[in-house]
Amino acid sequence: MIHLEKIQASPMINNPSLEQLAASLNKQAVLHGSVHRIRKMSGFSFLILRTADSLIQCILEPEKCHIEGLLKEEACIRAEATVTEEPRSRTGWELHLTEIKVLSSPEAEMPVVIHGKEIDASLETILDYRPLTLRNEKQRAVFKIQEGLCRGFRNFLEQEQFTEIHTPKIVYQGAEGGANIFHLDYFGKDAYLAQSPQFYKQMMVGVYERVFEIAPVFRAEKHDTARHLNEYTSVDFEMGYIDSFTDICRMEAAMLGSALQFLREKYAPELALLKVRLPEQLLETGEIPSIRFHEAKQWVAKAYSRPASEKDDFEPEEEKLLSRLIKKETGSDFVFVTHYPTAKRPFYACEDEGNPAVTLSFDLLFRGLEVTTGGQRIHEYSVQLEKMKRMGMDPSLFESYLWIHRAGMPPHGGLGLGLERFTARLLELDNIRQASLFPRDIHRVTP
Amino acid sequence: MIHLEKIQASPMINNPSLEQLAASLNKQAVLHGSVHRIRKMSGFSFLILRTADSLIQCILEPEKCHIEGLLKEEACIRAEATVTEEPRSRTGWELHLTEIKVLSSPEAEMPVVIHGKEIDASLETILDYRPLTLRNEKQRAVFKIQEGLCRGFRNFLEQEQFTEIHTPKIVYQGAEGGANIFHLDYFGKDAYLAQSPQFYKQMMVGVYERVFEIAPVFRAEKHDTARHLNEYTSVDFEMGYIDSFTDICRMEAAMLGSALQFLREKYAPELALLKVRLPEQLLETGEIPSIRFHEAKQWVAKAYSRPASEKDDFEPEEEKLLSRLIKKETGSDFVFVTHYPTAKRPFYACEDEGNPAVTLSFDLLFRGLEVTTGGQRIHEYSVQLEKMKRMGMDPSLFESYLWIHRAGMPPHGGLGLGLERFTARLLELDNIRQASLFPRDIHRVTP
Repeated sequence: MIHLEKIQASPMINNPSLEQLAASLNKQAVLHGSVHRIRKMSGFSFLILRTADSLIQCILEPEKCHIEGLLKEEACIRAEATVTEEPRSRTGWELHLTEIKVLSSPEAEMPVVIHGKEIDASLETILDYRPLTLRNEKQRAVFKIQEGLCRGFRNFLEQEQFTEIHTPKIVYQGAEGGANIFHLDYFGKDAYLAQSPQFYKQMMVGVYERVFEIAPVFRAEKHDTARHLNEYTSVDFEMGYIDSFTDICRMEAAMLGSALQFLREKYAPELALLKVRLPEQLLETGEIPSIRFHEAKQWVAKAYSRPASEKDDFEPEEEKLLSRLIKKETGSDFVFVTHYPTAKRPFYACEDEGNPAVTLSFDLLFRGLEVTTGGQRIHEYSVQLEKMKRMGMDPSLFESYLWIHRAGMPPHGGLGLGLERFTARLLELDNIRQASLFPRDIHRVTP
Repeated sequence: MIHLEKIQASPMINNPSLEQLAASLNKQAVLHGSVHRIRKMSGFSFLILRTADSLIQCILEPEKCHIEGLLKEEACIRAEATVTEEPRSRTGWELHLTEIKVLSSPEAEMPVVIHGKEIDASLETILDYRPLTLRNEKQRAVFKIQEGLCRGFRNFLEQEQFTEIHTPKIVYQGAEGGANIFHLDYFGKDAYLAQSPQFYKQMMVGVYERVFEIAPVFRAEKHDTARHLNEYTSVDFEMGYIDSFTDICRMEAAMLGSALQFLREKYAPELALLKVRLPEQLLETGEIPSIRFHEAKQWVAKAYSRPASEKDDFEPEEEKLLSRLIKKETGSDFVFVTHYPTAKRPFYACEDEGNPAVTLSFDLLFRGLEVTTGGQRIHEYSVQLEKMKRMGMDPSLFESYLWIHRAGMPPHGGLGLGLERFTARLLELDNIRQASLFPRDIHRVTP
């Protein structure tokens, strides 16, 4: 006798929203959450209930509330309460608890106090106890905003008919080559962790014309700075049938404007909590200023009486200074720097016909930091082959990649945006590690 | 004198949609795409234009069309044409070309013919030339449907207030432990590639209550079968405040129903092209049958007079036979198998209070294949510690993970769904490699 049951599709009932609670004055509500904080007063306690998205002020009067289980901070509870008007609360109401069932109670005290506005500890300690410190109101708001950015990017890209792809992270060759690549033993063969989905997204332009991916990438860079991670989330898109690399810039400006607008509409509480200054000029005008690399270099040198030490690249300090000049001159938090020197760009970068020493490529700087690299790619086989040979590369190592050039590719280009860098600059965080849930750097591989 | 330009946010104008073209009879249209096929007839040619999402029948009459450049198959073109009624075309209209500009022309013939309905080549060859064979109409439709599944899952999870997270893929310890884990040299330290986001998603339940991630995971399994990949895309969710593991099953049934409905609405052309049989029963009733592991085992043994060789797990053949029995008995393409033996589940699996030999866990089988593993997790520190010791594990290796149990966690659980497996079963593909853009298996790490 076989006993078959039926599982009925059904999402679980979740907590009422703040709006629903506000509309339920003097009524009973049932909700669950963690006890974020208990503050004893005379005759009653303030209990701050931490739900998925809010901190809710509750009043606990011993004689008016039945408690089942061991109630303490970080206990998980299911509670019944009366929604009561209270003008002094930040919502205009509070909950008067009538019934508490403790579902689980912690064994240990929190090693770090997380229920203050800020966590009073070093970044190292905050990261060491990341699974717990993320329970802090402001810490978790950072990653809600990061979620909002991803949703905003995706909404825009889907609307513009980009197809989402999933490309492999274990690869046989680094897209950009170079030493900054993690090596892997793959069943006795050499393999690597992808530094970017570059080759794959180009391949997929031949299939869907416009593609995107939001996924991890890996860089074995030995930098230990406030702006480098060894694993980060890359927002990549690539598109065919462009007339110029500036089509990519225009698309990016539209994507950023759309995502920031989405944040403003859907993530207002988190933006307010973290006092986020949105880049208003982009939202208002849809414009981002653009300057050529060599001119930018000269401008910074002249404006700050600063010798340009390296000819073909920016130093971090120069990016900061350029952003400052642009902000002063135009009011923009962003600037496209275009026509980077060929010497500093990868082998697939299109060169400027009029001046092969520079490429049809760009970086986007946001508040002093490069957050995007992009450009037009070479789509003609003969051109690509010639450039690889000129650079001393062995084309036979790139056979499947070069097949797309041989078999026909439209003019195309794209970009990669570092999600953590973008989040950090948007929220004006000092260190990129603050914008990664569980950062990986040269010293840190835990938690 | 500094030369600042302004980049104006603007998506590029894309091709008109099929609907827009159909509404433009006898008018001129401008569009771009690849020349998918040219068929010479007497006095004219059929030219099939491959755009991002369609194959469009065009008529090329030499004297009525100006051609600039070398026109051949797989050339990328920009074209002008008149939309002309044609009842024999599958859309009811076709394009009469008047102007063609060839943007790029291939250097080599396609190594595999891709413009037929199917590609007449072995799977090995199809995968060797994946960047090109994906240009085939049916091949690329597979991954449009996969995109649709991801969008459908995400839409549902966002609506149910799951927060999207990005967790590290370079980890210090495998979530499930065991030998099937890729090793990495991380700046002289030992590190591994994540087999699942298990620990991290549990940690994040303490932060947001409900979280999800769609991201790559890595398994160093030496299997060389039609259902294993060494890198795949895992759809993971985890949620707190559950009453029982069946809450997870109900949520999954709702998620699958919602995503399949989304596919039906938004991906009809691809579903029709691939003749996809949707699992109608789930769509109609929202129900999935459920059976306990040991009963399922017995049922299969009895129904097929088959000795149950391994006691605590299914053989692939048993999963197929069980699915067949369930289909016959209930009409369902899905079945939840619950209460897997404790011996075969990881250390964080909750045991059944009434019978600790089985866990509060489940697999979901879909058309003969396990596509999901899930269950309730241990949330109490003392219980988890005791179980780890019983299993001979060293808790000190899991310190940051165990902090969440010590500091308080709600009852919670979740699941992981293999995107490629799900796609393969939905489309009834023989081999999971057909559902991965660039599959990684024990022999293949290219392209």
